[in-house]
Amino acid sequence: MLRAGFVCHLGVVADGDPMVVPTVYGFDSDHIYVHGSVASRSLAQGATVCVTITHIDGLVLARSVFEHGVNYRSAMIYGVPRALEDEEKLAALECLTEHVAPGQWDYARRPNRKELAATTILAISLEEASVKVRQGPPEDADDPHDVWAGVLPLATSWRRPVTDPLATRPIPDHVMRRAETSL
Amino acid sequence: MLRAGFVCHLGVVADGDPMVVPTVYGFDSDHIYVHGSVASRSLAQGATVCVTITHIDGLVLARSVFEHGVNYRSAMIYGVPRALEDEEKLAALECLTEHVAPGQWDYARRPNRKELAATTILAISLEEASVKVRQGPPEDADDPHDVWAGVLPLATSWRRPVTDPLATRPIPDHVMRRAETSL
Repeated sequence: MLRAGFVCHLGVVADGDPMVVPTVYGFDSDHIYVHGSVASRSLAQGATVCVTITHIDGLVLARSVFEHGVNYRSAMIYGVPRALEDEEKLAALECLTEHVAPGQWDYARRPNRKELAATTILAISLEEASVKVRQGPPEDADDPHDVWAGVLPLATSWRRPVTDPLATRPIPDHVMRRAETSL
Repeated sequence: MLRAGFVCHLGVVADGDPMVVPTVYGFDSDHIYVHGSVASRSLAQGATVCVTITHIDGLVLARSVFEHGVNYRSAMIYGVPRALEDEEKLAALECLTEHVAPGQWDYARRPNRKELAATTILAISLEEASVKVRQGPPEDADDPHDVWAGVLPLATSWRRPVTDPLATRPIPDHVMRRAETSL
Protein backbone atom coordinates (compact mmCIF):
# COMPACT_ATOMS: atom_id res chain seq x y z
CA MET A 1 0.00 0.00 0.00
CA LEU A 2 2.88 2.35 0.74
CA ARG A 3 4.43 1.47 -2.61
CA ALA A 4 1.35 2.57 -4.57
CA GLY A 5 1.52 6.29 -3.73
CA PHE A 6 3.92 9.04 -2.87
CA VAL A 7 1.83 11.70 -1.11
CA CYS A 8 0.51 11.14 2.40
CA HIS A 9 -1.58 13.29 4.73
CA LEU A 10 0.30 14.16 7.89
CA GLY A 11 -1.87 14.99 10.88
CA VAL A 12 -0.48 16.82 13.89
CA VAL A 13 -1.96 18.59 16.87
CA ALA A 14 -0.99 22.29 16.73
CA ASP A 15 -2.07 24.42 19.70
CA GLY A 16 -4.70 21.85 20.55
CA ASP A 17 -6.27 21.74 17.09
CA PRO A 18 -5.76 19.20 14.34
CA MET A 19 -3.78 20.17 11.25
CA VAL A 20 -3.61 17.96 8.17
CA VAL A 21 -1.06 18.68 5.45
CA PRO A 22 -0.15 16.73 2.33
CA THR A 23 3.50 15.83 1.95
CA VAL A 24 5.73 13.33 0.15
CA TYR A 25 7.01 10.17 1.76
CA GLY A 26 9.34 7.23 1.34
CA PHE A 27 9.76 4.12 3.45
CA ASP A 28 11.89 1.12 4.28
CA SER A 29 11.00 -2.04 6.21
CA ASP A 30 10.83 -0.26 9.59
CA HIS A 31 9.99 3.39 8.99
CA ILE A 32 8.08 5.84 6.91
CA TYR A 33 10.03 9.03 6.11
CA VAL A 34 8.00 12.16 5.57
CA HIS A 35 9.25 15.42 4.18
CA GLY A 36 9.23 18.23 6.70
CA SER A 37 6.58 20.84 6.29
CA VAL A 38 4.60 23.49 8.09
CA ALA A 39 3.15 20.69 10.20
CA SER A 40 6.48 19.55 11.53
CA ARG A 41 7.28 23.08 12.71
CA SER A 42 4.06 23.10 14.72
CA LEU A 43 4.94 19.79 16.32
CA ALA A 44 5.49 19.63 20.07
CA GLN A 45 8.42 17.54 21.32
CA GLY A 46 7.32 13.93 21.85
CA ALA A 47 3.90 14.48 20.25
CA THR A 48 2.28 11.72 18.23
CA VAL A 49 1.46 12.22 14.57
CA CYS A 50 -0.86 10.33 12.25
CA VAL A 51 0.21 9.59 8.68
CA THR A 52 -2.60 8.52 6.37
CA ILE A 53 -2.11 7.17 2.86
CA THR A 54 -5.19 6.71 0.72
CA HIS A 55 -5.74 5.21 -2.72
CA ILE A 56 -9.13 5.73 -4.31
CA ASP A 57 -9.97 2.82 -6.62
CA GLY A 58 -13.52 3.61 -7.61
CA LEU A 59 -17.00 4.71 -6.78
CA VAL A 60 -19.50 2.11 -5.56
CA LEU A 61 -22.86 2.88 -7.18
CA ALA A 62 -25.44 0.86 -5.30
CA ARG A 63 -29.18 0.42 -5.67
CA SER A 64 -29.72 2.52 -2.56
CA VAL A 65 -28.04 5.84 -1.80
CA PHE A 66 -27.29 4.42 1.65
CA GLU A 67 -25.03 1.68 0.23
CA HIS A 68 -23.08 4.04 -2.02
CA GLY A 69 -19.44 4.26 -1.17
CA VAL A 70 -15.86 4.28 -2.31
CA ASN A 71 -13.52 1.41 -3.13
CA TYR A 72 -10.30 2.37 -1.45
CA ARG A 73 -7.16 1.24 0.31
CA SER A 74 -5.98 3.28 3.24
CA ALA A 75 -3.16 2.97 5.77
CA MET A 76 -2.85 4.92 9.01
CA ILE A 77 0.46 5.07 10.84
CA TYR A 78 0.71 6.47 14.35
CA GLY A 79 3.97 7.36 16.01
CA VAL A 80 6.23 9.90 17.60
CA PRO A 81 8.38 11.25 14.77
CA ARG A 82 12.11 11.66 15.02
CA ALA A 83 13.77 14.46 13.02
CA LEU A 84 16.79 12.91 11.32
CA GLU A 85 20.27 14.44 11.16
CA ASP A 86 23.45 14.06 9.11
CA GLU A 87 24.11 10.65 7.52
CA GLU A 88 20.76 9.29 8.63
CA LYS A 89 18.98 12.28 7.07
CA LEU A 90 20.89 11.86 3.81
CA ALA A 91 20.04 8.15 3.64
CA ALA A 92 16.35 8.82 4.35
CA LEU A 93 16.28 11.59 1.74
CA GLU A 94 17.73 9.19 -0.83
CA CYS A 95 15.08 6.61 0.12
CA LEU A 96 12.32 9.22 -0.15
CA THR A 97 13.62 10.67 -3.43
CA GLU A 98 13.93 7.24 -5.03
CA HIS A 99 10.40 6.39 -3.97
CA VAL A 100 8.86 9.63 -5.26
CA ALA A 101 11.08 10.11 -8.31
CA PRO A 102 12.91 6.85 -9.14
CA GLY A 103 16.24 7.38 -10.86
CA GLN A 104 16.57 11.01 -9.87
CA TRP A 105 18.98 10.50 -6.96
CA ASP A 106 21.67 9.47 -9.45
CA TYR A 107 20.55 11.79 -12.25
CA ALA A 108 19.92 15.10 -10.49
CA ARG A 109 22.39 17.00 -8.33
CA ARG A 110 22.43 15.66 -4.79
CA PRO A 111 21.90 18.05 -1.90
CA ASN A 112 24.88 19.98 -0.64
CA ARG A 113 25.49 20.62 3.03
CA LYS A 114 23.42 23.80 3.11
CA GLU A 115 20.46 22.22 1.28
CA LEU A 116 20.55 19.19 3.54
CA ALA A 117 20.49 21.46 6.59
CA ALA A 118 17.42 23.22 5.17
CA THR A 119 15.59 19.90 4.69
CA THR A 120 13.52 18.28 7.43
CA ILE A 121 12.93 14.55 7.30
CA LEU A 122 10.82 12.89 9.97
CA ALA A 123 11.10 9.16 10.62
CA ILE A 124 8.05 7.39 12.04
CA SER A 125 8.09 3.74 13.02
CA LEU A 126 5.78 1.45 11.04
CA GLU A 127 5.07 -0.53 14.20
CA GLU A 128 1.70 1.04 14.95
CA ALA A 129 -0.20 0.93 11.70
CA SER A 130 -3.64 -0.10 10.56
CA VAL A 131 -5.02 -0.77 7.13
CA LYS A 132 -8.53 -0.47 5.76
CA VAL A 133 -9.68 -1.79 2.40
CA ARG A 134 -13.04 -1.76 0.61
CA GLN A 135 -13.21 -3.43 -2.78
CA GLY A 136 -15.85 -5.10 -4.92
CA PRO A 137 -19.41 -4.50 -6.01
CA PRO A 138 -22.22 -2.89 -4.00
CA GLU A 139 -23.75 -5.05 -1.31
CA ASP A 140 -27.43 -4.34 -1.71
CA ALA A 141 -28.38 -6.85 -4.41
CA ASP A 142 -31.45 -7.70 -2.32
CA ASP A 143 -32.77 -4.15 -2.51
CA PRO A 144 -36.19 -4.10 -4.21
CA HIS A 145 -35.25 -0.89 -6.10
CA ASP A 146 -34.29 -2.58 -9.40
CA VAL A 147 -31.72 -0.34 -11.10
CA TRP A 148 -28.25 -0.78 -12.53
CA ALA A 149 -25.54 -1.11 -9.91
CA GLY A 150 -21.80 -1.43 -10.16
CA VAL A 151 -18.48 0.27 -9.75
CA LEU A 152 -17.04 3.23 -11.62
CA PRO A 153 -13.28 2.61 -11.43
CA LEU A 154 -10.87 5.49 -11.00
CA ALA A 155 -7.30 5.28 -12.24
CA THR A 156 -4.33 7.55 -11.81
CA SER A 157 -1.64 7.55 -14.46
CA TRP A 158 1.35 9.56 -15.56
CA ARG A 159 1.17 11.63 -18.72
CA ARG A 160 3.86 12.68 -21.24
CA PRO A 161 6.70 14.57 -19.53
CA VAL A 162 6.57 18.35 -19.98
CA THR A 163 10.07 19.66 -20.55
CA ASP A 164 11.10 22.83 -18.75
CA PRO A 165 11.38 25.51 -21.49
CA LEU A 166 14.82 26.31 -20.10
CA ALA A 167 16.09 22.73 -20.24
CA THR A 168 18.71 21.89 -22.85
CA ARG A 169 18.88 18.08 -22.53
CA PRO A 170 16.57 15.35 -23.86
CA ILE A 171 14.16 13.46 -21.59
CA PRO A 172 16.15 10.69 -19.90
CA ASP A 173 15.07 7.04 -20.21
CA HIS A 174 14.08 6.60 -16.58
CA VAL A 175 11.57 9.47 -16.88
CA MET A 176 10.18 8.19 -20.21
CA ARG A 177 9.73 4.72 -18.72
CA ARG A 178 7.85 6.07 -15.76
CA ALA A 179 5.56 8.17 -17.95
CA GLU A 180 4.32 4.91 -19.44
CA THR A 181 3.21 3.42 -16.13
CA SER A 182 0.10 3.80 -14.02
CA LEU A 183 0.40 4.68 -10.39
CA MET B 1 -10.78 23.24 -5.86
CA LEU B 2 -13.62 21.58 -3.95
CA ARG B 3 -15.31 20.72 -7.23
CA ALA B 4 -12.31 18.76 -8.52
CA GLY B 5 -12.40 15.92 -5.97
CA PHE B 6 -14.75 13.99 -3.75
CA VAL B 7 -12.55 12.51 -1.01
CA CYS B 8 -11.08 14.69 1.72
CA HIS B 9 -8.88 13.93 4.71
CA LEU B 10 -10.63 14.76 7.97
CA GLY B 11 -8.33 15.47 10.90
CA VAL B 12 -9.58 15.36 14.46
CA VAL B 13 -7.94 15.25 17.86
CA ALA B 14 -8.90 11.99 19.60
CA ASP B 15 -7.68 11.56 23.18
CA GLY B 16 -5.04 14.20 22.56
CA ASP B 17 -3.62 12.59 19.44
CA PRO B 18 -4.27 13.47 15.80
CA MET B 19 -6.36 11.12 13.67
CA VAL B 20 -6.66 11.54 9.92
CA VAL B 21 -9.30 9.60 7.99
CA PRO B 22 -10.37 9.79 4.36
CA THR B 23 -14.05 10.43 3.74
CA VAL B 24 -16.37 11.75 1.04
CA TYR B 25 -17.63 15.31 0.96
CA GLY B 26 -20.01 17.68 -0.77
CA PHE B 27 -20.37 21.43 -0.43
CA ASP B 28 -22.49 24.50 -1.09
CA SER B 29 -21.54 28.16 -1.00
CA ASP B 30 -21.22 28.26 2.81
CA HIS B 31 -20.38 24.78 4.05
CA ILE B 32 -18.53 21.60 3.35
CA TYR B 33 -20.46 18.45 4.30
CA VAL B 34 -18.43 15.43 5.27
CA HIS B 35 -19.71 11.94 5.71
CA GLY B 36 -19.57 10.69 9.29
CA SER B 37 -16.86 8.22 10.08
CA VAL B 38 -14.82 6.76 12.87
CA ALA B 39 -13.31 10.22 13.30
CA SER B 40 -16.62 11.90 14.04
CA ARG B 41 -17.32 9.39 16.82
CA SER B 42 -14.00 10.33 18.44
CA LEU B 43 -14.86 14.00 18.24
CA ALA B 44 -15.25 15.98 21.47
CA GLN B 45 -18.15 18.45 21.65
CA GLY B 46 -17.09 21.84 20.29
CA ALA B 47 -13.73 20.56 19.04
CA THR B 48 -12.22 21.97 15.86
CA VAL B 49 -11.53 19.72 12.87
CA CYS B 50 -9.32 20.21 9.83
CA VAL B 51 -10.56 19.13 6.42
CA THR B 52 -7.85 18.89 3.77
CA ILE B 53 -8.49 18.36 0.07
CA THR B 54 -5.51 17.68 -2.14
CA HIS B 55 -5.11 17.30 -5.89
CA ILE B 56 -1.79 16.04 -7.17
CA ASP B 57 -1.09 17.43 -10.64
CA GLY B 58 2.43 16.20 -11.25
CA LEU B 59 5.94 15.63 -10.14
CA VAL B 60 8.47 18.46 -10.44
CA LEU B 61 11.77 16.97 -11.62
CA ALA B 62 14.40 19.63 -11.08
CA ARG B 63 18.12 19.78 -11.75
CA SER B 64 18.81 19.48 -8.04
CA VAL B 65 17.19 16.98 -5.68
CA PHE B 66 16.56 19.91 -3.35
CA GLU B 67 14.22 21.62 -5.83
CA HIS B 68 12.21 18.49 -6.55
CA GLY B 69 8.61 18.76 -5.56
CA VAL B 70 5.00 18.21 -6.40
CA ASN B 71 2.59 20.33 -8.43
CA TYR B 72 -0.55 20.34 -6.36
CA ARG B 73 -3.62 22.22 -5.26
CA SER B 74 -4.66 21.90 -1.66
CA ALA B 75 -7.37 23.43 0.50
CA MET B 76 -7.53 23.32 4.29
CA ILE B 77 -10.75 24.13 6.09
CA TYR B 78 -10.85 24.62 9.85
CA GLY B 79 -14.04 24.70 11.87
CA VAL B 80 -16.21 23.28 14.58
CA PRO B 81 -18.46 20.75 12.86
CA ARG B 82 -22.17 20.54 13.45
CA ALA B 83 -23.87 17.15 13.12
CA LEU B 84 -26.97 17.70 11.02
CA GLU B 85 -30.43 16.31 11.75
CA ASP B 86 -33.72 15.66 9.93
CA GLU B 87 -34.46 17.86 6.90
CA GLU B 88 -31.09 19.56 7.06
CA LYS B 89 -29.34 16.19 7.09
CA LEU B 90 -31.39 14.98 4.13
CA ALA B 91 -30.59 18.13 2.12
CA ALA B 92 -26.87 17.84 2.91
CA LEU B 93 -26.86 14.15 1.99
CA GLU B 94 -28.45 15.00 -1.36
CA CYS B 95 -25.80 17.69 -1.90
CA LEU B 96 -23.01 15.25 -0.97
CA THR B 97 -24.43 12.40 -3.08
CA GLU B 98 -24.86 14.62 -6.14
CA HIS B 99 -21.29 15.83 -5.76
CA VAL B 100 -19.76 12.37 -5.36
CA ALA B 101 -22.10 10.47 -7.70
CA PRO B 102 -24.01 12.93 -9.92
CA GLY B 103 -27.39 11.65 -11.04
CA GLN B 104 -27.65 8.98 -8.38
CA TRP B 105 -29.95 10.88 -6.01
CA ASP B 106 -32.74 10.59 -8.56
CA TYR B 107 -31.70 7.18 -9.91
CA ALA B 108 -30.97 5.15 -6.78
CA ARG B 109 -33.34 4.57 -3.87
CA ARG B 110 -33.24 7.48 -1.45
CA PRO B 111 -32.56 6.80 2.21
CA ASN B 112 -35.47 5.76 4.37
CA ARG B 113 -35.94 7.01 7.93
CA LYS B 114 -33.82 4.25 9.45
CA GLU B 115 -30.95 4.70 6.97
CA LEU B 116 -30.98 8.45 7.45
CA ALA B 117 -30.78 7.96 11.23
CA ALA B 118 -27.75 5.70 10.71
CA THR B 119 -25.97 8.34 8.62
CA THR B 120 -23.81 11.08 10.12
CA ILE B 121 -23.27 14.27 8.15
CA LEU B 122 -21.06 16.99 9.59
CA ALA B 123 -21.36 20.57 8.33
CA ILE B 124 -18.28 22.77 8.58
CA SER B 125 -18.30 26.44 7.65
CA LEU B 126 -16.10 27.43 4.71
CA GLU B 127 -15.28 30.71 6.48
CA GLU B 128 -11.86 29.67 7.75
CA ALA B 129 -10.10 28.15 4.78
CA SER B 130 -6.72 28.45 3.15
CA VAL B 131 -5.50 27.34 -0.23
CA LYS B 132 -2.05 26.36 -1.42
CA VAL B 133 -1.07 25.87 -5.03
CA ARG B 134 2.22 24.93 -6.70
CA GLN B 135 2.24 24.73 -10.49
CA GLY B 136 4.76 25.10 -13.29
CA PRO B 137 8.30 24.01 -14.08
CA PRO B 138 11.19 23.55 -11.64
CA GLU B 139 12.81 26.75 -10.42
CA ASP B 140 16.48 25.88 -10.56
CA ALA B 141 17.30 26.76 -14.18
CA ASP B 142 20.42 28.50 -12.91
CA ASP B 143 21.78 25.29 -11.40
CA PRO B 144 25.14 24.37 -12.98
CA HIS B 145 24.14 20.67 -13.03
CA ASP B 146 23.04 20.53 -16.68
CA VAL B 147 20.43 17.77 -16.95
CA TRP B 148 16.90 17.47 -18.29
CA ALA B 149 14.28 19.07 -16.07
CA GLY B 150 10.53 19.27 -16.27
CA VAL B 151 7.26 18.03 -14.94
CA LEU B 152 5.78 14.55 -15.07
CA PRO B 153 2.02 15.23 -15.05
CA LEU B 154 -0.33 12.94 -13.18
CA ALA B 155 -3.95 12.55 -14.23
CA THR B 156 -6.88 10.81 -12.62
CA SER B 157 -9.66 9.55 -14.81
CA TRP B 158 -12.68 7.28 -14.68
CA ARG B 159 -12.61 3.92 -16.41
CA ARG B 160 -15.38 1.81 -17.98
CA PRO B 161 -18.12 1.04 -15.44
CA VAL B 162 -17.99 -2.48 -13.99
CA THR B 163 -21.50 -3.86 -13.71
CA ASP B 164 -22.43 -5.73 -10.55
CA PRO B 165 -22.77 -9.41 -11.62
CA LEU B 166 -26.15 -9.38 -9.87
CA ALA B 167 -27.47 -6.30 -11.70
CA THR B 168 -30.21 -6.83 -14.28
CA ARG B 169 -30.40 -3.36 -15.86
CA PRO B 170 -28.17 -1.65 -18.44
CA ILE B 171 -25.70 1.07 -17.50
CA PRO B 172 -27.64 4.35 -17.29
CA ASP B 173 -26.63 7.36 -19.41
CA HIS B 174 -25.47 9.51 -16.50
CA VAL B 175 -22.95 6.85 -15.46
CA MET B 176 -21.72 6.31 -19.04
CA ARG B 177 -21.24 10.05 -19.49
CA ARG B 178 -19.23 10.32 -16.31
CA ALA B 179 -17.01 7.39 -17.26
CA GLU B 180 -15.86 9.47 -20.21
CA THR B 181 -14.62 12.38 -18.10
CA SER B 182 -11.44 13.06 -16.19
CA LEU B 183 -11.61 14.05 -12.59
